[in-house]
Amino acid sequence: MADGKPTLAVLGGTGKEGSGLAARWAAAGYEVVIGGRDAGKAEAAAAELAAAIPGANVRGADNAAAAAAGEIVVLTVPYAAQQATALAVKDALAGKILVDVTVPLVPPKVNRVQLPEGGSAAMALQAALGEGVRVVSAFQNISAHHLHDLDHELDCDVLVAGDDIAAREAVIALAEAAKLRGFHAGPLCNSVVTEALTSVLISINQRYKVPSAGIRITGLPG
Amino acid sequence: MADGKPTLAVLGGTGKEGSGLAARWAAAGYEVVIGGRDAGKAEAAAAELAAAIPGANVRGADNAAAAAAGEIVVLTVPYAAQQATALAVKDALAGKILVDVTVPLVPPKVNRVQLPEGGSAAMALQAALGEGVRVVSAFQNISAHHLHDLDHELDCDVLVAGDDIAAREAVIALAEAAKLRGFHAGPLCNSVVTEALTSVLISINQRYKVPSAGIRITGLPG
Repeated sequence: MADGKPTLAVLGGTGKEGSGLAARWAAAGYEVVIGGRDAGKAEAAAAELAAAIPGANVRGADNAAAAAAGEIVVLTVPYAAQQATALAVKDALAGKILVDVTVPLVPPKVNRVQLPEGGSAAMALQAALGEGVRVVSAFQNISAHHLHDLDHELDCDVLVAGDDIAAREAVIALAEAAKLRGFHAGPLCNSVVTEALTSVLISINQRYKVPSAGIRITGLPG
Repeated sequence: MADGKPTLAVLGGTGKEGSGLAARWAAAGYEVVIGGRDAGKAEAAAAELAAAIPGANVRGADNAAAAAAGEIVVLTVPYAAQQATALAVKDALAGKILVDVTVPLVPPKVNRVQLPEGGSAAMALQAALGEGVRVVSAFQNISAHHLHDLDHELDCDVLVAGDDIAAREAVIALAEAAKLRGFHAGPLCNSVVTEALTSVLISINQRYKVPSAGIRITGLPG
């Protein structure tokens, strides 16, 4: 922990979405551990971020070591690897917040909502991990397209769903650290919306020939 | 049809959402038939709109007569009545566009996403009606709160999902007539998102103490 900021582990942080989020958190002064299946690749990804971001406190490790080091753990692997990756480090997640960024796309028709069993990948993950881990769903709708451009104002809000309100607050703080607006979206079952919304946004990207459609929440005070 | 504008039937048009949409379409010069279970109540609702909107061409009828008169039929009944209402007028819907505004809320916990069998109320309706009716899903996220205030700029976009692109275009035109922005959201299965999003918006309304949170699509050209 640095300056009251929790150490963050980003499992799958060698991917585009994970490394983009890691870059923004590193730039905001968080200590970040990039996790990967391969420690060497994770170290290389971390070195790349460290070179690009002055003063960044970022290192790489295999997913198990990253999960052990993180006070909040962020899961940014493809849907097919979601449960296996989290279950492999289950003991290291005990008592922690696990931020699930998983989008349950079913290739090749990624512009069609194809709900997973039970409707929500985050709910299935919570069931698999048990009550000892606080799963919070967030960031599924943030296009990786501009995440690495740290000065780019991302025109998309983050809906944060989870059953533990304090855990949601902690993830909203992470959204804000990444220069995004985060909002309470209700209990974890509401993660259905953000998981499925990504297919709608992909559909909009295709139809309107844009790289990264997003959503803003309206009607709020201020 | 008046001025190339299709005659609209709004089944359940005596309710707050349906009468609000009907008011906006009547104000835009559409011929509107308010449908209700009770013809007298539908006529009274129509008379109220006619009195409020100069030049409005609006009348009331029972749902069967309204469905027969409408070139596009809009379904704005509560979820519990959705399939029964549509199936009762199935013959009158043949070859037409049916705009499904249904939100599959499960009281009392309307701020929790509780998916219907198969995930989408609109998909279930399409299956029940068969291929002779073009079901298009739209308007579930538009709060009734400001619909009747015709000069109020509604700060929410309309995601339009349907398997027939021309039918979606027709519904996008209806959104624009109601002074809303409508967007192609992909095939009808993507209706899951708008149906479930309403629970998230209710959750946001409760959490942030606002009357009508909504969404805007971002990242589009212009």
